[in-house]
Amino acid sequence: MDETQLNFRIAQLNARYARSLDNGLLEEWPEYFSDTCAYRITNRDNHAHGLPGSLVYAKGKGMLIDRVQALRRANIYEAQSYRHVIGVPLIEAAGDEEVRTETPFFVLRTMRTGEFSAFASGVYLDRVAIDRPHHVRLRERVVVCDSSRIDTLLAIPL
Amino acid sequence: MDETQLNFRIAQLNARYARSLDNGLLEEWPEYFSDTCAYRITNRDNHAHGLPGSLVYAKGKGMLIDRVQALRRANIYEAQSYRHVIGVPLIEAAGDEEVRTETPFFVLRTMRTGEFSAFASGVYLDRVAIDRPHHVRLRERVVVCDSSRIDTLLAIPL
Amino acid sequence: MDETQLNFRIAQLNARYARSLDNGLLEEWPEYFSDTCAYRITNRDNHAHGLPGSLVYAKGKGMLIDRVQALRRANIYEAQSYRHVIGVPLIEAAGDEEVRTETPFFVLRTMRTGEFSAFASGVYLDRVAIDRPHHVRLRERVVVCDSSRIDTLLAIPL
Repeated sequence: MDETQLNFRIAQLNARYARSLDNGLLEEWPEYFSDTCAYRITNRDNHAHGLPGSLVYAKGKGMLIDRVQALRRANIYEAQSYRHVIGVPLIEAAGDEEVRTETPFFVLRTMRTGEFSAFASGVYLDRVAIDRPHHVRLRERVVVCDSSRIDTLLAIPL
Repeated sequence: MDETQLNFRIAQLNARYARSLDNGLLEEWPEYFSDTCAYRITNRDNHAHGLPGSLVYAKGKGMLIDRVQALRRANIYEAQSYRHVIGVPLIEAAGDEEVRTETPFFVLRTMRTGEFSAFASGVYLDRVAIDRPHHVRLRERVVVCDSSRIDTLLAIPL
Repeated sequence: MDETQLNFRIAQLNARYARSLDNGLLEEWPEYFSDTCAYRITNRDNHAHGLPGSLVYAKGKGMLIDRVQALRRANIYEAQSYRHVIGVPLIEAAGDEEVRTETPFFVLRTMRTGEFSAFASGVYLDRVAIDRPHHVRLRERVVVCDSSRIDTLLAIPL
């Protein structure tokens, strides 16, 4: 794969990831990760100062699956929906077997009443594994949120 | 065309589509569709339940042109402007002559007073016709809005 | 470079540009421009009527560097952060040495209190120089803002 194709594959991965979350298909979410993986949500301040303080931390696909089950139990009634708008993946370093990318995102929330609000924005710092030709999965995703206050963080993964 | 090129063509189609709408050049809008085409605006709830309830429905390029003329008569003075932010087209199924894609969008509205508001968000479910090499047009666009309340829907197509 | 690769390069340029601004690394900003360059911020109304009225105007990389220094002196404490969401570059005209593109953007602002607001939206009208194979820089960027009121324009470049 040349860089253009690689970028396309990663953008498609992000598009599928977003669709699963926005359609409420949370059970699909762990499938975008490698078996050996890490997922973390932090904020800009903590990240800039190298602080570990993560709002969410999961290591290994099993923990992602557990997290989805916990979200399912907690959210009996979904009164709102989400829409991810994900930017172009910026390729930082590309190897044969792994790529580091940085991708901005913005999540809009729509309440049943019709009101919109910005739910979250930030950047995905990813290590993307190239499993086999034309197939990519997330080995690590660090979600760096612009805001330090994310009230309803439990509603969906970011 | 390989998948990367195809995706590029579809993204360019969406970019032109958005520019025509955001620049108020509504008369260009039907040109992005095939002669035999369908355009429909619905919402997430109706779509999820398979309900036909469409806010807007047009079949054939003639109806799209009629719709633009009706919008021109209704909107004498445009007090606001729109900005589409369209995501990466997710390629669902690609044939030689037609591609199915799913593409998230977000429309921001700016009032003359300078105030911004989210106008609409959702997903385009498209059947894209590959007319001839490197040329794509919309055969069907179903606009699934996240919100069930779209007050000022008549202002522009989505 | 074919058009797909060219589009990829320009999208990567925009992604790096956005990251520098959103991470507060303003000193990197002039590096995305050619030595002989122009940067201008105007609004939709002025642009549509061919009026020169620019909110910001800089000619040559030296003026961009000056502008960053002025911003550094003015903004002692940064109470907010920004997130650019940049759309797909629409290729208008591609030559061997220069490309004209049009790219929508949206900037979300996050206050330290956690509140989000739309800061700006509009379109970049660019002349992109192809310096050498696979390397692109901005020769001219005209930022056409949707709103005529941009209060805190001095905070960051757009």
